[in-house]
Amino acid sequence: MTKPLHVDLAKRSYKIHFSDDDFSILKNDLKKFCSDKTLFIVTDNKIAKLYKKQWHKNLTKDFVCHWITIPSGEQHKTLATIEKICLDLSKKGAHRKSLLVALGGGVVGDITGLAASLYMRGIPFVQIPTTLLAQVDSSVGGKTAVDLPSGKNLVGHFYQPKAVYIFTSFLKTLSERDYRSGLAEVIKYGLIYDAAFFKALIKNKTKLQNREPKTLTSIIRRCCEIKSLIVAADETEQDQRAILNFGHTFGHAYEALENYTGLTHGEAVSLGMVFSTWYSQKIIPKTLLPLQELIDLLKFLKLPTKSKAYPLSKIKKALASDKKSTGQQVKFITLNQLGCAKIKPVSLIELTSRWQEFLND
Amino acid sequence: MTKPLHVDLAKRSYKIHFSDDDFSILKNDLKKFCSDKTLFIVTDNKIAKLYKKQWHKNLTKDFVCHWITIPSGEQHKTLATIEKICLDLSKKGAHRKSLLVALGGGVVGDITGLAASLYMRGIPFVQIPTTLLAQVDSSVGGKTAVDLPSGKNLVGHFYQPKAVYIFTSFLKTLSERDYRSGLAEVIKYGLIYDAAFFKALIKNKTKLQNREPKTLTSIIRRCCEIKSLIVAADETEQDQRAILNFGHTFGHAYEALENYTGLTHGEAVSLGMVFSTWYSQKIIPKTLLPLQELIDLLKFLKLPTKSKAYPLSKIKKALASDKKSTGQQVKFITLNQLGCAKIKPVSLIELTSRWQEFLND
Repeated sequence: MTKPLHVDLAKRSYKIHFSDDDFSILKNDLKKFCSDKTLFIVTDNKIAKLYKKQWHKNLTKDFVCHWITIPSGEQHKTLATIEKICLDLSKKGAHRKSLLVALGGGVVGDITGLAASLYMRGIPFVQIPTTLLAQVDSSVGGKTAVDLPSGKNLVGHFYQPKAVYIFTSFLKTLSERDYRSGLAEVIKYGLIYDAAFFKALIKNKTKLQNREPKTLTSIIRRCCEIKSLIVAADETEQDQRAILNFGHTFGHAYEALENYTGLTHGEAVSLGMVFSTWYSQKIIPKTLLPLQELIDLLKFLKLPTKSKAYPLSKIKKALASDKKSTGQQVKFITLNQLGCAKIKPVSLIELTSRWQEFLND
Repeated sequence: MTKPLHVDLAKRSYKIHFSDDDFSILKNDLKKFCSDKTLFIVTDNKIAKLYKKQWHKNLTKDFVCHWITIPSGEQHKTLATIEKICLDLSKKGAHRKSLLVALGGGVVGDITGLAASLYMRGIPFVQIPTTLLAQVDSSVGGKTAVDLPSGKNLVGHFYQPKAVYIFTSFLKTLSERDYRSGLAEVIKYGLIYDAAFFKALIKNKTKLQNREPKTLTSIIRRCCEIKSLIVAADETEQDQRAILNFGHTFGHAYEALENYTGLTHGEAVSLGMVFSTWYSQKIIPKTLLPLQELIDLLKFLKLPTKSKAYPLSKIKKALASDKKSTGQQVKFITLNQLGCAKIKPVSLIELTSRWQEFLND
């Protein structure tokens, strides 16, 4: 049994539970969190197809279950979907004490968290992330959001779940591409916070590729631990929490330029991390960063390492609409050394000229 | 010069400023609140027509002003409008430190507040309410929301402004019906919190009807004072803040049954307050409540006092979808005595049967 993690956020503190497929803690908690034994479970059609029947059977012994199924995919991460969920909740009689359950990947988690924060000005919710990406990243920390045509996650709220339940058994049915997408975020934690963890990932890369259950559980737990430490120190990203965005400034831009369909989030972050590491090396030449090791590891895990040469004007526009941009400047995340990230304000001009240099490198 | 009010909400405390048409405090504050001297002013087409030219001229001496004009009316209080505003903000380059200004009535205030709470997970905003209703009620207290087809204000957040600026000169251009709508909320404060204030309203009813500036300023300030005391004690409506909903349980139901177009909010609240006072008298027969005085005052101010006899099934459905309902029960607000409201859980069956009795009374 893996020990649960405590995310320390004063009144909003909560636990992250880890298990392969033991539902006992989840069930006990759900009874505690919802007084009227009624669950409103939000999921997408992919997860519903794979798991709804089994979960429904399992949960209806103890709960009345209302399912709200949304179409899968980032393109549905919109306020229109939030409205549909809230309307559904209202029609099904959800009230201020009703419990929302997010069962799915990052998109389902982000949408459900935002819907929970908005419906009747906030009702409780729990996260049950079903992808590696959601398990190591989006389900922890309370960031909820939807996209705008002009950029990703531009509309949202900080809203903490009552608890997070991580079942590694979900990862068995994850597609190769979605699994790899999660690995990019796993590697990020090593780069920004834990040099030994980064080295262990290189050492265990074959086990990682083979989804070896024991290795995976310990890796996921460490990622959640790092993330919750960073989040507990700066819940609403006034400052240091921004280091979690390492690789994401360009990552988000690439995703936008591919209309959120050409690249998975992890692939985009993989590309972004290589540039950010290259950039960090460039501006602090005396530091030796494991750029080649990073590229080798990403390639081994079949993650991309060099982006297309997008037109400069388009990259600039995408970067300018980043949430961390204030007009002409971007809060860029760099590495001071392996395992230590820093926030560095960089002008858009400097950043894009370095990016061109990188592409020609 | 009327003294500003301090709304005591710890880190989220702010001031409410009162003036007829002196903009000096507003201008100084705006400089303080927005580092880049760029304002994003949200207003509706009615207010834009009356005030945009003059305000733009006045503000552009010190600020870059981006105007975001939305169509007026409750029917546009939707997530679709929120999306439009956020997209506009993003296209116009608004960032995390940009300042949003809500210039308009309750709908503009509610929408702008919600957009501010959501854009990039929260940017600062100030309220400049232009209607009596917004000045005495919706601009104070941090409730932001939009409607769903199934009910009013079902989607929203608690999000406090940086400050509120009340200019009574706006009231000169307010239509008779909108003005009366605000008066209903003014009377509510007397009923739920301040018997002497209620009596003073009766005494000054002619001045009130004539929009006598001095009377108005003092009345508006007292309403804001009562509201901010209630809000400071219970910001997120865990308990006592709910007394502000006196007259609103049925008020909201009437509004919904008239598709948010047949009745103004104040007219609906006026109807709701009469029933709630009648009901309070009924269940606590020994208390003498000024039901007839209330009806006389409302009638003098041309506010309605008896609702249509809506079909019982429709009223029940509308009441059940109220945010204060938990299935079969409603948190109903009653009067213990003049100036003192209490929360009383009442079953939907009891409430609607009393309502029928009231209609036949």
